[in-house]
Amino acid sequence: MTMEAARTLRDEEIHQLGELAAQLRVDAIRCSTRAGSGHPTSSLSAADLLAVLISRHLRYDWADPDSPANDHLIFSKGHASPLLYAVFKAVGAITDQELVDTYRAFGSRLQGHPTPALPWVDVATGSLGQGLPVGVGIALAGQYLDHLPFHVWVLCGDSETAEGSIWEALDKAGHYGLRNLTAVVDVNRFGQRGTTELEWDLDTYRRRMEAFGCQAIVIDGHDLVAVDDALRRARQATGPTVLLARTLKGKGVPEIENKPDWHGKPLKADLAERAVSALGGTRQIRVTGPRPEPAPPATAPAAEPPDLPRYDRGAKVPTRNAYGDALRAVGRRPDVVVLDGEVSDSTRADRFAGAYPDRFFEMFISEQQLVAAAVGLQVRGYRPFASTFAAFLSRAYDFIRMAGISQADIALSGSHAGVEIGADGPSQMGLEDLAAMRAVHGSTVLYPSDAVSCAALVAQMVDRKGINYLRTTRGGYPVLYDNDDAFPVGGSKLLRGGDDDRVALIGAGVTVHNSLAAADELAREGIGARVIDLYSVKPLDRDRLVDAVRDTGGRLVVVEDHYPEGGLGSAVLEALADLPEPVRVAHLAVGGLPTSGTPTELMDQAGIGTGAIVAAARALLGKTG
Amino acid sequence: MTMEAARTLRDEEIHQLGELAAQLRVDAIRCSTRAGSGHPTSSLSAADLLAVLISRHLRYDWADPDSPANDHLIFSKGHASPLLYAVFKAVGAITDQELVDTYRAFGSRLQGHPTPALPWVDVATGSLGQGLPVGVGIALAGQYLDHLPFHVWVLCGDSETAEGSIWEALDKAGHYGLRNLTAVVDVNRFGQRGTTELEWDLDTYRRRMEAFGCQAIVIDGHDLVAVDDALRRARQATGPTVLLARTLKGKGVPEIENKPDWHGKPLKADLAERAVSALGGTRQIRVTGPRPEPAPPATAPAAEPPDLPRYDRGAKVPTRNAYGDALRAVGRRPDVVVLDGEVSDSTRADRFAGAYPDRFFEMFISEQQLVAAAVGLQVRGYRPFASTFAAFLSRAYDFIRMAGISQADIALSGSHAGVEIGADGPSQMGLEDLAAMRAVHGSTVLYPSDAVSCAALVAQMVDRKGINYLRTTRGGYPVLYDNDDAFPVGGSKLLRGGDDDRVALIGAGVTVHNSLAAADELAREGIGARVIDLYSVKPLDRDRLVDAVRDTGGRLVVVEDHYPEGGLGSAVLEALADLPEPVRVAHLAVGGLPTSGTPTELMDQAGIGTGAIVAAARALLGKTG
Repeated sequence: MTMEAARTLRDEEIHQLGELAAQLRVDAIRCSTRAGSGHPTSSLSAADLLAVLISRHLRYDWADPDSPANDHLIFSKGHASPLLYAVFKAVGAITDQELVDTYRAFGSRLQGHPTPALPWVDVATGSLGQGLPVGVGIALAGQYLDHLPFHVWVLCGDSETAEGSIWEALDKAGHYGLRNLTAVVDVNRFGQRGTTELEWDLDTYRRRMEAFGCQAIVIDGHDLVAVDDALRRARQATGPTVLLARTLKGKGVPEIENKPDWHGKPLKADLAERAVSALGGTRQIRVTGPRPEPAPPATAPAAEPPDLPRYDRGAKVPTRNAYGDALRAVGRRPDVVVLDGEVSDSTRADRFAGAYPDRFFEMFISEQQLVAAAVGLQVRGYRPFASTFAAFLSRAYDFIRMAGISQADIALSGSHAGVEIGADGPSQMGLEDLAAMRAVHGSTVLYPSDAVSCAALVAQMVDRKGINYLRTTRGGYPVLYDNDDAFPVGGSKLLRGGDDDRVALIGAGVTVHNSLAAADELAREGIGARVIDLYSVKPLDRDRLVDAVRDTGGRLVVVEDHYPEGGLGSAVLEALADLPEPVRVAHLAVGGLPTSGTPTELMDQAGIGTGAIVAAARALLGKTG
Repeated sequence: MTMEAARTLRDEEIHQLGELAAQLRVDAIRCSTRAGSGHPTSSLSAADLLAVLISRHLRYDWADPDSPANDHLIFSKGHASPLLYAVFKAVGAITDQELVDTYRAFGSRLQGHPTPALPWVDVATGSLGQGLPVGVGIALAGQYLDHLPFHVWVLCGDSETAEGSIWEALDKAGHYGLRNLTAVVDVNRFGQRGTTELEWDLDTYRRRMEAFGCQAIVIDGHDLVAVDDALRRARQATGPTVLLARTLKGKGVPEIENKPDWHGKPLKADLAERAVSALGGTRQIRVTGPRPEPAPPATAPAAEPPDLPRYDRGAKVPTRNAYGDALRAVGRRPDVVVLDGEVSDSTRADRFAGAYPDRFFEMFISEQQLVAAAVGLQVRGYRPFASTFAAFLSRAYDFIRMAGISQADIALSGSHAGVEIGADGPSQMGLEDLAAMRAVHGSTVLYPSDAVSCAALVAQMVDRKGINYLRTTRGGYPVLYDNDDAFPVGGSKLLRGGDDDRVALIGAGVTVHNSLAAADELAREGIGARVIDLYSVKPLDRDRLVDAVRDTGGRLVVVEDHYPEGGLGSAVLEALADLPEPVRVAHLAVGGLPTSGTPTELMDQAGIGTGAIVAAARALLGKTG
């Protein structure tokens, strides 16, 4: 291929590319040495790849990073940020001064690993194995929704191919035939603490990639002509492509080139000086790469208001059904897309898929890719809803964490929450999801008790910023609300209450129903019990809780179908932490390890059933039995 | 192969195997129909595979499930529990009555998905893609530590090969050349809601498996002779093997065989009756499969008490260094094994690896496999410590959740906690780990502030049950304690305090140091501030907190290097929830999205630095500036 390719690059062009590559290397060294930390050697190995990519293949209008026509460039190996920022300097997006003076400094947007604080960065990377799965989501948008010719280029490290998420991504790239996706793997054969598993066994890499449905192109990653040819072939391919680039870590600096023990270490000043000198000194080359073809103006279809499903009060409707119904309703909006992890008949996402098959993406049983694809789709402005069992979203927790750092706007729905699911047993029960999701930066956590409130919350999730998590219940419980009631995020509902309330029963989801039954029983004993539906777990309706404290003498029973730590109980306690009045909270949660059984058996065993609530209320009031 | 293999099975044997397979099918139908839920069709597809395996290849003493000589049988497709329990009946481990009368019933050990409530089940499964990675851990133990000839057989579904964790497992199986590991993939081409990605494309499966370093054997999964031959070849292989068995979902019941829409659905009574009849009715065949060769008696070496590292008070020692030092010290015990996710030079697990290379397993960058291997190693009685950055343990959260359900005894260490890490930025900061880990069933969460307490806690983690999580800090902070101090799990330390304490400053890890500095500053203002080191976040030293409430008039400042939800603050609030006295907690945590910077800059920005603690204490006392 090299001979044929050679015809496409003139000597002068090769020289210019070499100069640019040298500049990228020099700048990566300069900024990391100045910062005193960073990963110069991991940048040096990929400098030639990037020099060719940005000069000749990446179609990007650096002055208009939001243009839908732009290609996408993702550093899945986010630790190579010195190289990425050197690229940004080379294209004129940032100045040399910003690069060298602010890299990794407090207050700088040039952070240790890339984040969307920079307008040319789609998503935060730095947790390895995530950039490529997100790239799959962007490519899905381009090929299946936008129908735009942009290409998604993802720079991967070789070490990160040990992450299963890389194979989830390649599998989906192959399955969906993503011709607009190219992974460029920088095979420098060194990880952080030594050689990688496969070192320079490019043939094994190739066989793996091909078996997963991608076209693999093996090249010398420092041969500018070969790189150019491979990138051209990648763009013209009819399916997903992987460039397997054999490279040298630390390439270009003889003292560190291809040597172990240089991962993540900046060059000391004297070594940096020698290196920069050997590389020909500092340059201020400004690259003008190919521009994207202008995208046709987006035709923003008038957003029709959703015609939300309506339910009869008292009818027993699982909230997961309401999720599916509401999804279908908000699906009138063409920017709403839905993904599921091969359980859409359980999560009820299939109700959307049936109505809008072109905007439904089956991710099969790969929850990491499920969330990553959602993050990628929102990069292109879509409003993704991704669903699976609440328990299995834990599989994607690192992706959700990183989505928070990316300040991505996504909606997640976890069905089959808590012991309420019954006979399937603990492996299928979401029992730690409220804690995990609450702790994600910028998250919203919703847990409706009935179908009406669930549908109303789904409608709000469409336009809500950040990571929006909806917890749904397997079984059917009575509709509690009128179809025209409002359920603002951050609000709550007072279901029972009067002037003589002596205790407040606080639940969310299924435990609201148990609390109502408990209030009835307490009423029969002459005990006034307030019942609060905290459908918005984060943000929480603190005012409602403060009122309850003041009205009941600080007697609260908080009951949740979740392990005791970090869930609804913690949310209530956190909200009231600085309240001067005494508060006594009886916290009922799933203390032991659940088994199989009926929902009622399991809730009673867990101590979150009606009887336990009544007993807790009595105890707060100093009554026994 | 079939012709050659045919010589190894007599007609009579084939008949017996067929009868056994029919019994397994019948029993899977009977128990799930009786329970009214379960996955009979996913059981039927694999019945022939299991009939041959348990009759002729699985070397297992069912009366002695703890025998180290036993093979291991893991249902990675845990939803096929009707088949697994039918196997247990066939080998005489459980009665027909227990099988049919108690499957999925409340209080039964025959839960919807297998758990170690059954002595023949190593680990809980039901979250797909986990059984095989755990099997890798068991196989590592057998081949590298036990040096015993047992074999690990893992029944996988075809759908679960979409999980990246399967590829992490196969990659490690190949890397470590695990000749004692066989995955049997039941390729019935149907998932839950339709066909799988690859359907019956056995050739693509084969190419993937082979590219990942495993010998693939493609067979008709209903051809008893072929199955027998393949299982024999698998046991004799010199590396890891994968049987790719083409099967029919619902095999043996014409009305449902090879039909979609039958996933996870029990047969109605009339259909079940017809099916059982067509399969020849109920049988009570008792199988006697091969027994393991007796294992040599385990030579339990005298456990030497660890010679824990000692540190000088005031010396600045990162707790991650103490982790590595202590690991090396407890490494005297031959049952201690250590794993790391390719960052052992950062977590300091390399200090163990250098001393005990034979008991160190490099898992490269595959955190799911890292945790799964630890779970597998503890199945064989080892005491695994698995480490990576705290942030990246989130990648394995589903595995940690499931390890809790397995009631596995493992130690996890997450380094680089919080904004304290500085310049690398938020992707590398563990900021939700305390919330996530606290919410795991049966977890212990430890977060020492100095090297002495860290080493003492590591020593206790060796023998502690359940999921033990240790959070360590990147930077060096002064040693606070004497080497002979005691740090019991569940305890705490009073670092400052007197009769006139008016406020308590409560921290863990790095914020203990900030709290000490704050107490000094408050003392200069004449304000007595108690300082509590809550190194044991779960379980928590409630008594110490209650004393603090009573002695300070309920004024607590809790400060943590973690997002605000679910961490140390919540732990304190949960512990004091039902205290009758008024408590006012000023909770300082990382509220915004961190960036790069120095540790001090970032802690100050996050509002968890010394100045913020002083201000919070003053505010609780009604003082300003």
